[in-house]
Amino acid sequence: MNSNDVFRPFMEPNGVAIVGARRSPGFGYSIPVSLIRQGWKDHIYLVNPVGGELHGLPVHKTLTEVPDYVDLAVVIVPAPAVPGVMEEIGMRGIKNVILETAGFSETGEKGRELQDSVRDIALKYRIRIIGPNCVGVINTENKFSTVEVLEKALTKGPLSIVAQSGMFGAGIMDYIYQRNLFVSKAVTLGNRLDINECDTLEYLHKDEATRVILMYLEGASNGRRLLNILDRVTRDKPVLILKSGKTDVGRKATASHTGSLSGEDNLYDASFKQFGVVRAETVEELITMSLVFSSQPEPEGGRIGIITSSGSMGVMAADTAVTAGLEMPMPSESTVKRIREKAPGWMNVKNPLDVGPSNLFGEAIEAMLEDPAIDMVLPILIIPITVLEMFRKQGITIEKWFGDIKAIRARAPRKPLVICAMGNSQFVSEMRSFLGTDVPVITSPEPAAKALGAYWEYHRIKTGREKAIRN
Amino acid sequence: MNSNDVFRPFMEPNGVAIVGARRSPGFGYSIPVSLIRQGWKDHIYLVNPVGGELHGLPVHKTLTEVPDYVDLAVVIVPAPAVPGVMEEIGMRGIKNVILETAGFSETGEKGRELQDSVRDIALKYRIRIIGPNCVGVINTENKFSTVEVLEKALTKGPLSIVAQSGMFGAGIMDYIYQRNLFVSKAVTLGNRLDINECDTLEYLHKDEATRVILMYLEGASNGRRLLNILDRVTRDKPVLILKSGKTDVGRKATASHTGSLSGEDNLYDASFKQFGVVRAETVEELITMSLVFSSQPEPEGGRIGIITSSGSMGVMAADTAVTAGLEMPMPSESTVKRIREKAPGWMNVKNPLDVGPSNLFGEAIEAMLEDPAIDMVLPILIIPITVLEMFRKQGITIEKWFGDIKAIRARAPRKPLVICAMGNSQFVSEMRSFLGTDVPVITSPEPAAKALGAYWEYHRIKTGREKAIRN
Repeated sequence: MNSNDVFRPFMEPNGVAIVGARRSPGFGYSIPVSLIRQGWKDHIYLVNPVGGELHGLPVHKTLTEVPDYVDLAVVIVPAPAVPGVMEEIGMRGIKNVILETAGFSETGEKGRELQDSVRDIALKYRIRIIGPNCVGVINTENKFSTVEVLEKALTKGPLSIVAQSGMFGAGIMDYIYQRNLFVSKAVTLGNRLDINECDTLEYLHKDEATRVILMYLEGASNGRRLLNILDRVTRDKPVLILKSGKTDVGRKATASHTGSLSGEDNLYDASFKQFGVVRAETVEELITMSLVFSSQPEPEGGRIGIITSSGSMGVMAADTAVTAGLEMPMPSESTVKRIREKAPGWMNVKNPLDVGPSNLFGEAIEAMLEDPAIDMVLPILIIPITVLEMFRKQGITIEKWFGDIKAIRARAPRKPLVICAMGNSQFVSEMRSFLGTDVPVITSPEPAAKALGAYWEYHRIKTGREKAIRN
Repeated sequence: MNSNDVFRPFMEPNGVAIVGARRSPGFGYSIPVSLIRQGWKDHIYLVNPVGGELHGLPVHKTLTEVPDYVDLAVVIVPAPAVPGVMEEIGMRGIKNVILETAGFSETGEKGRELQDSVRDIALKYRIRIIGPNCVGVINTENKFSTVEVLEKALTKGPLSIVAQSGMFGAGIMDYIYQRNLFVSKAVTLGNRLDINECDTLEYLHKDEATRVILMYLEGASNGRRLLNILDRVTRDKPVLILKSGKTDVGRKATASHTGSLSGEDNLYDASFKQFGVVRAETVEELITMSLVFSSQPEPEGGRIGIITSSGSMGVMAADTAVTAGLEMPMPSESTVKRIREKAPGWMNVKNPLDVGPSNLFGEAIEAMLEDPAIDMVLPILIIPITVLEMFRKQGITIEKWFGDIKAIRARAPRKPLVICAMGNSQFVSEMRSFLGTDVPVITSPEPAAKALGAYWEYHRIKTGREKAIRN
């Protein structure tokens, strides 16, 4: 069975039993509510020995009472009740389970024994399991989500998420949409009794809607297999990894969180570098990189053009860009000429280009994007909020001042363009709603430059490996 | 003349001539407007050869026409007009000038010559100058600001800023208030024709309202003197520095920005470490550290307690904390007992402490703050936005769920407490408005842990030097 066959019932189920649906607050209440809201009412079946009715649906006392075809069970009962429920699931012929319940191997020896007994039942009935100790899956394509997230967070996007931790996988769904970062699939793995990050990577590798993969990993379930799969996936799609457990303390904390061992960190690092796996150092960096990788074309070279009205921010970005492996050449003669024609006398056309208080941003962005000597462009937009407010009164929009960056992007679509917008959150949100998903908006210069450096490194390694194969 | 005497007319002027006040948009328009709004109408004198009236004030054609005592001139005329204006200022007996005009040494040889001629005039009349190529000063104590910023940004606070770059110094004023970070003084230095970062540091060292100093530096005007002063200031107040020009490209960009040389970066680094100068690597890090240093007491030890509902974020924070030189011991017996008494059976009381979906945050925060085995506490608060919305409908406030952290802080004020609030921006702002300036709210775990590590390192070096003196 290939990975798409394995994942289909989890991501595109026909009938879903929710075992442990209940009236009191918690997942047993919120999962049915949100699935109904997302249009899944006719495909879900609530199960709880108390029976009765909930959310306008009958509550079946046992799984055997569920009248229709069910190919997925979402289990939210307390840990000690799980083996019994698993037997019922097996008897009912359901082959796929999202086991959200916590209290297994992450809690110590007794939990591990309980988890083993669940594994034995799963093996007996050939049941595939995601979890335990997870929050399941999100699929924005069909709005199937075992996590309650905001409607807006279910907008389709190019990024897919694999996370061991439920809080991590679902937690970032609460705010990445506010930065115009949207998701196709998310899978939270928990203790990985059965399905693990390797299976998920294989699935996302084949999944057409997934263009970039974000992974939060505490430790590999099978290091050799993971590297093997990463070797293949990275030839086609970028994989961005945040791996915790860099220190002994972190590793110890990890063991008691999802019961996994995080292994020797530097062993991973070497292989990651070889395959062009992008390793983020912080949650914020992971999100910034995801935004850049999933919205921009791959850079064909490592020459960055920086445009700014703040010399100091230009310098900070230049420092970071160079440290991240990028070059900062002078723009071409023709670009210099083109900008100089419109520029006030004081403006020194170079790289980083400080346009000062002029409104030459748009002109400079387009010229740099069209310059054969430049491979990617990072404009750093800063405007005092008081000036922005004055402009608003005078009817001067942000696209009038900074150029119609959306239109420029459409005319010159082939190079990465990342906007750094610094200042009051009001300015940042205006810029985000203006640019939508076309151009990412990052709020400080260094992470933007670092993400562009990482993107070039990914592309360089990928094409290097392609050439090695052809030769 | 000591540094306070030097700075008094710049920060607390009696009469201010604004040379280059004008009707058209720009600093010449906005500076008088904002000074009038801040209550300075009776102390400012507009000067422009066109004469007439502006903002209800007479516009004097020359400085000699200004009828009252003036001890500060803010100059905003075009660069070529500056020498003439400086002569007038000298003749009028004004001894202090904020020269905002750009187009001097930062533009090359000709600009350098012009700057030299301004210096000669200043020496002749014994005029002290801040600038050129700057935006002047901000003093929230008396609301004297030569930069137009939002009213809210002029709230008094413990942080003072020294920045070479005007855009940097004033730019961050536009948004740090949104994170509850407030300023006492800000001085932007520009090309540093006369007054430089050393003078400013000496002033802020003595300034009682300044508790923490934030510095953006491209290059030292006099490296030896700077280190000498930093040696002294850091014995009393933390100095947080963001220094650009780490790479050759950055250094080159710096030279053409404020015309300064950024020098050998690693030479600075060694001395910074010795004095406990805190060096931030990015703008964001600088702001996070400023927030932590200026709101929290100094940590008396390096043992951090982490409390979270997301195991993965706890691990990320633990990794960063340990890398930043902190320790993560087990809490004391009594703390473990105290938390266990209220904790559900599944909760494993350790460090990081994962309270899971319980509402034990408040209890755990207070227990950790009171634990003699713990020197600082970092709670990482995460809550799905959908749950937060449900709570709101049920009348459950964030302080009911996460504990009344404001009251806990008041009861246990002696150790650093930094909140990491992750998730939807709505949750973050609620938490910020609840906690005010008592407890900083950071939006991801690693920067919070890193800032706490830097704070402990500052305190450790400072007390180590104090002991060395006593012995």
